Amino acid sequence: MTRVVALAGGVGGAKVAFGLDRALAAMGGAAGLTVIVNTADDLELHGLHVSPDLDTVMYTLAGLADRERGWGLTAETWQALRMLERYGAETWFKLGDRDLATHVRRTARLAEGVPLSVVTAELASALGVDTTLLPMSDDRVRTRLRTEAGWLDFQDWFVRRRQVDRVTEISIEGVEASRPAPGVRKAIAAAALVVVCPSNPLVSVAPILAVPGIREALLEAPAPVVAVSPIVAGRALRGPADRMLGWLGLEVSAAGVAQLYVERYPRLLDGFAIDRQDEATAGRIEALGLRVLVADAVMDSDETRIALARAVLEWGLSLPRRA
Amino acid sequence: MTRVVALAGGVGGAKVAFGLDRALAAMGGAAGLTVIVNTADDLELHGLHVSPDLDTVMYTLAGLADRERGWGLTAETWQALRMLERYGAETWFKLGDRDLATHVRRTARLAEGVPLSVVTAELASALGVDTTLLPMSDDRVRTRLRTEAGWLDFQDWFVRRRQVDRVTEISIEGVEASRPAPGVRKAIAAAALVVVCPSNPLVSVAPILAVPGIREALLEAPAPVVAVSPIVAGRALRGPADRMLGWLGLEVSAAGVAQLYVERYPRLLDGFAIDRQDEATAGRIEALGLRVLVADAVMDSDETRIALARAVLEWGLSLPRRA
Repeated sequence: MTRVVALAGGVGGAKVAFGLDRALAAMGGAAGLTVIVNTADDLELHGLHVSPDLDTVMYTLAGLADRERGWGLTAETWQALRMLERYGAETWFKLGDRDLATHVRRTARLAEGVPLSVVTAELASALGVDTTLLPMSDDRVRTRLRTEAGWLDFQDWFVRRRQVDRVTEISIEGVEASRPAPGVRKAIAAAALVVVCPSNPLVSVAPILAVPGIREALLEAPAPVVAVSPIVAGRALRGPADRMLGWLGLEVSAAGVAQLYVERYPRLLDGFAIDRQDEATAGRIEALGLRVLVADAVMDSDETRIALARAVLEWGLSLPRRA
Repeated sequence: MTRVVALAGGVGGAKVAFGLDRALAAMGGAAGLTVIVNTADDLELHGLHVSPDLDTVMYTLAGLADRERGWGLTAETWQALRMLERYGAETWFKLGDRDLATHVRRTARLAEGVPLSVVTAELASALGVDTTLLPMSDDRVRTRLRTEAGWLDFQDWFVRRRQVDRVTEISIEGVEASRPAPGVRKAIAAAALVVVCPSNPLVSVAPILAVPGIREALLEAPAPVVAVSPIVAGRALRGPADRMLGWLGLEVSAAGVAQLYVERYPRLLDGFAIDRQDEATAGRIEALGLRVLVADAVMDSDETRIALARAVLEWGLSLPRRA
């Protein structure tokens, strides 16, 4: 079994996790994949604990993610949401009826004292997901964004206000006191390869790396660590990563993200995967001390997801470990 | 405005409340109806606060109750329930998607510290219900049933075990320490008539009358108090009241219920309404000191509900108050 760890946020992370899951299964039978997922954009909604990134990864791996909508479950209905609206509840976060069951069940189990990591394993197992899904932490961590409209909760900014407010500062509240979820450090130590998914480096990957102990575990791990660029041809594959980088005065390019990782997390990465459209910048990234994979990084189908994952696996597993 | 108070459990209570609501609206414009509802068969399900009787009355008054099924909301779907089942949750209590929104909203508001009576008013108002809906108490009260299988929670016995276990004792836990919900005593004091709905006298009406202060308020009220028999021709109009009466050695008849009320709650009732099928027993009930109304008490349509309510109103409002 080839043990691989992926660090993932929402949709971009889910796509690569899906590709890795299927590629590993095809390579060696049982998939040895562990996905460590950002929970800093979790939220409480109608008293329910919603974990958008965990759910996106879980639904995607279970083959239940809605492709057209780009989020949530397939064959979803909206009866409860319409009633909640009638009751005067805020409904800017669209909870489908099937999705609602996930949050109801998660919240009930958490209220019984079961840690998020255990609840996550229960939910994923019930949906037939073999891959190990781990929240980055069982502790409460929340991303807050400073904008012209003041400090906003992440989902408030992301969903309710549709990312229109210019972000000038990012705070990952509670992260200093958080601990890695059980299994996180062990999975990293046992991995043959660690893949940082093409998720938003500032609000999806950064919280994971900010949990005390996770970055240290990655630095001590014997496995090479590679990242896949979330920026292709100067634009985010999905979401507001490109605008966010720009607002914060960072370079909006694959090379810019590589530089961000190298500067903020010295010695963390061994390699960086970019799309063919950015091939010309490979030399700049290599000059940062990283090996570079040039591949098709735009994942618009199961096949392209698996092909990218396979390319990253073959390349990453053969990389020498940083000195 | 004719002020009327109804004491109600679930379906039987909801039907009479519906009839009273519509009959009063037709009589005098604005309906002066207050329905005081049993909450001793509330339950916590998936961490959600479910109030079956309150919801049945609310949905019925809002014209949203499902008639064929006999419980829950019309145009209901079951997507969330199927997912909850997939997650291994217990699904013996059938929560529809629209209904689920009610419980999610109620639970969220309660968690914010809003009392059940206020939440109930919010929900009912949102559904366009003009009638004042009051839980009997904002405090936690729970009916427990002693059976051959041991002590069971009411809904566990009623729904999950389908009322197969012979009930030998009824305990209304927490009721001694409970207080009437705000508005309950005032509504009773201001009423021109109090109607005890044809709900189960042992597990729907008894908990309301056991809340310290409610029975006293009824005894002190200037208004006549009348009950509608839940037993017609020796059978319960709906639910297990007939079997339950029998198990406890009580007479399963309209006159038996009248006697039960007179013995357990001396001086409470002034009148008792029975179905035409039980007309022969009117003399026995009068001998208990009660005035008797003989009417069509089987409510199988909106028209029959309103007709019964109108008959009860005309008769009840003209009754002399007990000495």
